[in-house]
Amino acid sequence: MVQILETKQSQNWKAIASSLSKELSENAVARDAEAGLPDYEVKRLRESGLLPLVVPKEYGGIGATWAEALKIVQELSKADGSIGQLFGNHLNLTALAHVSGTPEQKERYYRETVQHNLFWANAINTRDTRLKITSEGEKFRVDGIKSFGTGVAVADLRVFSALPDGAEVPFIFVIPKDRLGVISNQDWHNIGQRRTDSDTFSFHQVLVEKDEILGFPNPPEYAFATFLGIIAQLTKTYVYLGIAEGAFAAAQEYTKTTTKPWITSGVDSAAKDPYILYHYGEFRVELEAAIALADRAALQVQQAWEKDVDLTFAERGEVAIAVFAAKAFATKVGLDITTRIFEVMGTRSTASKYGFDRYWRDLRTFTLHDPVNYKLRDIGNWILNQELPVVTQYS
Amino acid sequence: MVQILETKQSQNWKAIASSLSKELSENAVARDAEAGLPDYEVKRLRESGLLPLVVPKEYGGIGATWAEALKIVQELSKADGSIGQLFGNHLNLTALAHVSGTPEQKERYYRETVQHNLFWANAINTRDTRLKITSEGEKFRVDGIKSFGTGVAVADLRVFSALPDGAEVPFIFVIPKDRLGVISNQDWHNIGQRRTDSDTFSFHQVLVEKDEILGFPNPPEYAFATFLGIIAQLTKTYVYLGIAEGAFAAAQEYTKTTTKPWITSGVDSAAKDPYILYHYGEFRVELEAAIALADRAALQVQQAWEKDVDLTFAERGEVAIAVFAAKAFATKVGLDITTRIFEVMGTRSTASKYGFDRYWRDLRTFTLHDPVNYKLRDIGNWILNQELPVVTQYS
Amino acid sequence: MVQILETKQSQNWKAIASSLSKELSENAVARDAEAGLPDYEVKRLRESGLLPLVVPKEYGGIGATWAEALKIVQELSKADGSIGQLFGNHLNLTALAHVSGTPEQKERYYRETVQHNLFWANAINTRDTRLKITSEGEKFRVDGIKSFGTGVAVADLRVFSALPDGAEVPFIFVIPKDRLGVISNQDWHNIGQRRTDSDTFSFHQVLVEKDEILGFPNPPEYAFATFLGIIAQLTKTYVYLGIAEGAFAAAQEYTKTTTKPWITSGVDSAAKDPYILYHYGEFRVELEAAIALADRAALQVQQAWEKDVDLTFAERGEVAIAVFAAKAFATKVGLDITTRIFEVMGTRSTASKYGFDRYWRDLRTFTLHDPVNYKLRDIGNWILNQELPVVTQYS
Amino acid sequence: MVQILETKQSQNWKAIASSLSKELSENAVARDAEAGLPDYEVKRLRESGLLPLVVPKEYGGIGATWAEALKIVQELSKADGSIGQLFGNHLNLTALAHVSGTPEQKERYYRETVQHNLFWANAINTRDTRLKITSEGEKFRVDGIKSFGTGVAVADLRVFSALPDGAEVPFIFVIPKDRLGVISNQDWHNIGQRRTDSDTFSFHQVLVEKDEILGFPNPPEYAFATFLGIIAQLTKTYVYLGIAEGAFAAAQEYTKTTTKPWITSGVDSAAKDPYILYHYGEFRVELEAAIALADRAALQVQQAWEKDVDLTFAERGEVAIAVFAAKAFATKVGLDITTRIFEVMGTRSTASKYGFDRYWRDLRTFTLHDPVNYKLRDIGNWILNQELPVVTQYS
Repeated sequence: MVQILETKQSQNWKAIASSLSKELSENAVARDAEAGLPDYEVKRLRESGLLPLVVPKEYGGIGATWAEALKIVQELSKADGSIGQLFGNHLNLTALAHVSGTPEQKERYYRETVQHNLFWANAINTRDTRLKITSEGEKFRVDGIKSFGTGVAVADLRVFSALPDGAEVPFIFVIPKDRLGVISNQDWHNIGQRRTDSDTFSFHQVLVEKDEILGFPNPPEYAFATFLGIIAQLTKTYVYLGIAEGAFAAAQEYTKTTTKPWITSGVDSAAKDPYILYHYGEFRVELEAAIALADRAALQVQQAWEKDVDLTFAERGEVAIAVFAAKAFATKVGLDITTRIFEVMGTRSTASKYGFDRYWRDLRTFTLHDPVNYKLRDIGNWILNQELPVVTQYS
Repeated sequence: MVQILETKQSQNWKAIASSLSKELSENAVARDAEAGLPDYEVKRLRESGLLPLVVPKEYGGIGATWAEALKIVQELSKADGSIGQLFGNHLNLTALAHVSGTPEQKERYYRETVQHNLFWANAINTRDTRLKITSEGEKFRVDGIKSFGTGVAVADLRVFSALPDGAEVPFIFVIPKDRLGVISNQDWHNIGQRRTDSDTFSFHQVLVEKDEILGFPNPPEYAFATFLGIIAQLTKTYVYLGIAEGAFAAAQEYTKTTTKPWITSGVDSAAKDPYILYHYGEFRVELEAAIALADRAALQVQQAWEKDVDLTFAERGEVAIAVFAAKAFATKVGLDITTRIFEVMGTRSTASKYGFDRYWRDLRTFTLHDPVNYKLRDIGNWILNQELPVVTQYS
Repeated sequence: MVQILETKQSQNWKAIASSLSKELSENAVARDAEAGLPDYEVKRLRESGLLPLVVPKEYGGIGATWAEALKIVQELSKADGSIGQLFGNHLNLTALAHVSGTPEQKERYYRETVQHNLFWANAINTRDTRLKITSEGEKFRVDGIKSFGTGVAVADLRVFSALPDGAEVPFIFVIPKDRLGVISNQDWHNIGQRRTDSDTFSFHQVLVEKDEILGFPNPPEYAFATFLGIIAQLTKTYVYLGIAEGAFAAAQEYTKTTTKPWITSGVDSAAKDPYILYHYGEFRVELEAAIALADRAALQVQQAWEKDVDLTFAERGEVAIAVFAAKAFATKVGLDITTRIFEVMGTRSTASKYGFDRYWRDLRTFTLHDPVNYKLRDIGNWILNQELPVVTQYS
Repeated sequence: MVQILETKQSQNWKAIASSLSKELSENAVARDAEAGLPDYEVKRLRESGLLPLVVPKEYGGIGATWAEALKIVQELSKADGSIGQLFGNHLNLTALAHVSGTPEQKERYYRETVQHNLFWANAINTRDTRLKITSEGEKFRVDGIKSFGTGVAVADLRVFSALPDGAEVPFIFVIPKDRLGVISNQDWHNIGQRRTDSDTFSFHQVLVEKDEILGFPNPPEYAFATFLGIIAQLTKTYVYLGIAEGAFAAAQEYTKTTTKPWITSGVDSAAKDPYILYHYGEFRVELEAAIALADRAALQVQQAWEKDVDLTFAERGEVAIAVFAAKAFATKVGLDITTRIFEVMGTRSTASKYGFDRYWRDLRTFTLHDPVNYKLRDIGNWILNQELPVVTQYS
């Protein structure tokens, strides 16, 4: 049996997130057009008090569960997919040392996040192998290039992955904003998620301390150490859901206030058009199904999270399957809604001043993070062959 | 926040239902071919102890919530859609006097269901207005015809609706199996749900007592009085989900054991075929989404149910919207899965001995109960105009 | 530029086919229920004069082009998918010796088909390798089993494939109905195409003459020799289209005459229901698109056919790509229409007396002949890699 | 029977159009970003010699059929939807006086188009009723506002509709570019078709001659007079098809040259990925089906066109139904392809420099011209009730 509980505290965060979401949605069209650094957004996130959302209470954090925290990601994504991605990544990264760091790193980064109200960002992307790390005396030196540094330019703590000579498994390390030699190339000019500033970064003889390398010298080998990759997949899912919800809400408002009835419809308002009603029904149904599926996966994620290092590989894999399903479905539904909202709004809704295309552009961009095809294949492989997904950054 | 709790007791019913489902699935193909009266199925349901599943404990029943009970409907429907429909209808009818009867009727029918382990069935269908009721001294007399009497021929208690002279709102009454003058025309020859025996019934001067008429003389006027119609919609949804799950499980077994790899696939087993894996992924994703959406609606139904006569019309309407969404989505997903499973099984899976077409035939038949178009329209109308669905037998 | 020409003669065949289609549709539901041998259907086909439809005029045949002949297959399939499949196979087989036989065989079989008004059928299915052929003096002897012998039991000329010892490429041979040792196992009990009698055949020391083996001793090696496999794929496509058209027409008639308007629709006839109109619009659009695509492929097939032995492998492959597209699309559209017609007819359309499920059952069965997945893959492979489909019985 | 003929002449226009299409596609991304007046495009169209494409040879034109001319529209639209729309509108307008003008107007405008190589554009949009026309002595005076003046700012001849006092049917008139008092508001800032410059126009005491009003004083009442509306619907369809084809071709090139194989795909190039191949197969199938359906409708349009004033209302209506089907289907297919191409290209294909989102933005914008819902409804209404579409600007 499933029960819905909602604490006062979680209602508070939601209220804060809703308020911030509403505020940020007001000039979202202008920010999308401008692109550039999300400095304003990160400032407002910092001021909201939501940065330590998943930091456990024992370290002074808010201590939200993942199931709770991801609803906040969804709420912010309604306003703007870029913010949702930035905040979602941040939440994941605040817990990175917990899963793959040493006990000291876990404690240190949780505490520092709270004490200094830190914002995290990363360019881990393991498919890009151009960033190299080599030992240099007591330290390490990093050189090369790394792409997709979402929000890194404005983050307090920056997480990167770099390959040691001859190794296949990269080191992941955390460095502060002021570390010398890290250059943002400011080259994120893309059709969507335009305020994520997902630049390429160049490293010039950047020094990294041993204790900045997560899990150094021996990274943990249990299933939990890579579980954040699964959480990250679900975090993206909530960004998709938020974008789709934002599109739905924007369309609903427009149809009610602005759309004219069609000349042969026989009705005097668009809100009475039988086909417009029908399509809103379709959108709502699929959106609610996608949300329900994701929320179910979020509970499974949280249960797995609470097992901590006792999480088995089988348990990790089964949660991954649930998360993949939520992600694949949110992708499909989101693309459908963000494309078809225009049909219930009409010709004039394509005016740039409304910016209604940003929902599709943001969703289309971010849902390409890794291919849905292989998520479906992995699910099928589990069903027919009881094989768990291969552990990668994406699965 | 949402939590999953599962009591020992609910695990027991599930175990009983699973066992019965498995047993009944074994000769489901033969029963489908034979059609006819579901006497054996009702006998086994009676022996299972599941008949008083939603009768409150204070009357000696099991006291399951609707959210719990509908999972049992789903489990039985995996074996056979007909059983699912019969049992689902039965559950709804055991609670009929609770919502629309007098306090005496509520108590009486709850108690009798438990004491005599009664099986309920009905032919309420208000679109068929050929059954007439007139007063005859202290009693009433019923004459005419009523269609879609699912399982009525084998039921202990039979519920019908009949129109009083000149009235628009029918009387709904409950009569025992041995009441004289009620004739089953044994005319259910349909492509699906073939063991539901949804016959037409002819009435010849059938006498009905006043206290057999629910809510006589003044039926209740609060929203709760018609709430069972919404629960009935969700009950059908769980039958759809069960049928789709049954189809999925049957296909999974067949692909693993019997399907041959395609000649140009380059793989040596069908379970490694990239497209078969992909399609199973697709089926799983949509099936899980449909289940998640229905389970969410079931919680809302249960919360509304517990408000009893305090349920407002607005609350009733909002739950209806959630139920309609679950129903529309389960319909779409179920038709997709029951059609496409053949593509992951291959040519030889069309042999009649497997009976794999029964999933589609059952689902196709039962999903036509009332049109999905108007469920989507009602959802849209609520979204754009904040209008609640018109209260009918179906909404 | 494309022009539509229609000769008087082609109008005549069409009229004959339409008349026969209409006649055969009248008791199609009963025949589907009975299954068994299609003796009556083949008798009526024989009487229609349509058997030598693609036999060239120089051999006394009608001399229709493939583009013309396949429209006749479509017309007959409207009545009954089984007839369509039987007649389509027959047409393909009458031309078999033309593509893969010796010049003598080509002439002989064309002439005999006309002179004796012969009906052809086959069990070639190369995936089933249980039928073996060995030399026995001047003749050959065939033993073993062959499945999917559609209509073979009632055919005048029977085509089979059998594997010589140690060989990978089978011999294909033609034997008359009265050849000793060929036993129909009468085991076609399937959910659709029930009157095709696609039995398994057992061979007991069956003797085959050398000149009954097509292309003996050296089968032709040019692309044209296997081009009938591509025509066969398109022939199946026209059966699918015919079934879908039959379903559409049956639904159209039922909605107009029998469906009742829904209670909250606000209209007084189902034919005015906005959603029913909309769905008919959807069906029509996709059906017409599927027909247009197939008709275009049929022209390409005919152009390739006329090149005869000069057809290059590249040309063969490009026509195959067009045919695969037509087939994949007809499958998708047909399944959609045969499933969704019920939604525009309503609950009572599931009565067995109408037999409306036979459209789905027939289409679902026959579209599994070979997997659509690999048709789409082959198209993609041609687009991205300019690779032609591997030549098999199916491609 | 259908035959494909292609004359030398039509190959010439195609070659010119292909060359121009290729040229214009090269800086299409930059033009899309810039938006603004399509002066360069119209200049190149003028230089191409294609402007008098549908002007009959007797007036010195090229004399292409509609079926031929619309393929040119498709070809240009592959490069850029804006050009396709501008050129398609132009073609329609060159024939406007033919259908709804006086015989003198027909001759005059055909001749002038050829002699002066004129480019036409319009703001007819009858839903916008703000433009008023009143008699002023021997002339008429026009005042007010008219929206959606696609390409009008750069056109030689400009067509508008304006309402006479108290009338419901507007006057349609043609004026030269230099007529005083017509002001382009340069307010087309939309998400797609950005180079169509579909501005709002303000009229300040603009004088119009009697013989500039089409069909003045008595507009023709036969079906042919409004047939250009149907041709215009099909013209839009070819723009949609061209955009979808352009997207397909761009993706094909990108996947072959740039996309990297996925890490768990087990293949060494994206062009061998089984799912990428499969999706290209899907795209191709639906694109070819949409083209085949439109080409079939184009033949029907041409046949109807040749009936000229003898065209009956029934014939007009039946061609409309075929055109609506083509349009509805091209819309659906185009949206699918322009959204999903990204999935076969991968993450990096969202870089703005490629501009791959313009296909979706252009198609999404232009397919909203008038709602597909009512096209499908009209088709259904014809199927079930044999009612022809109501004659409007759009049907």
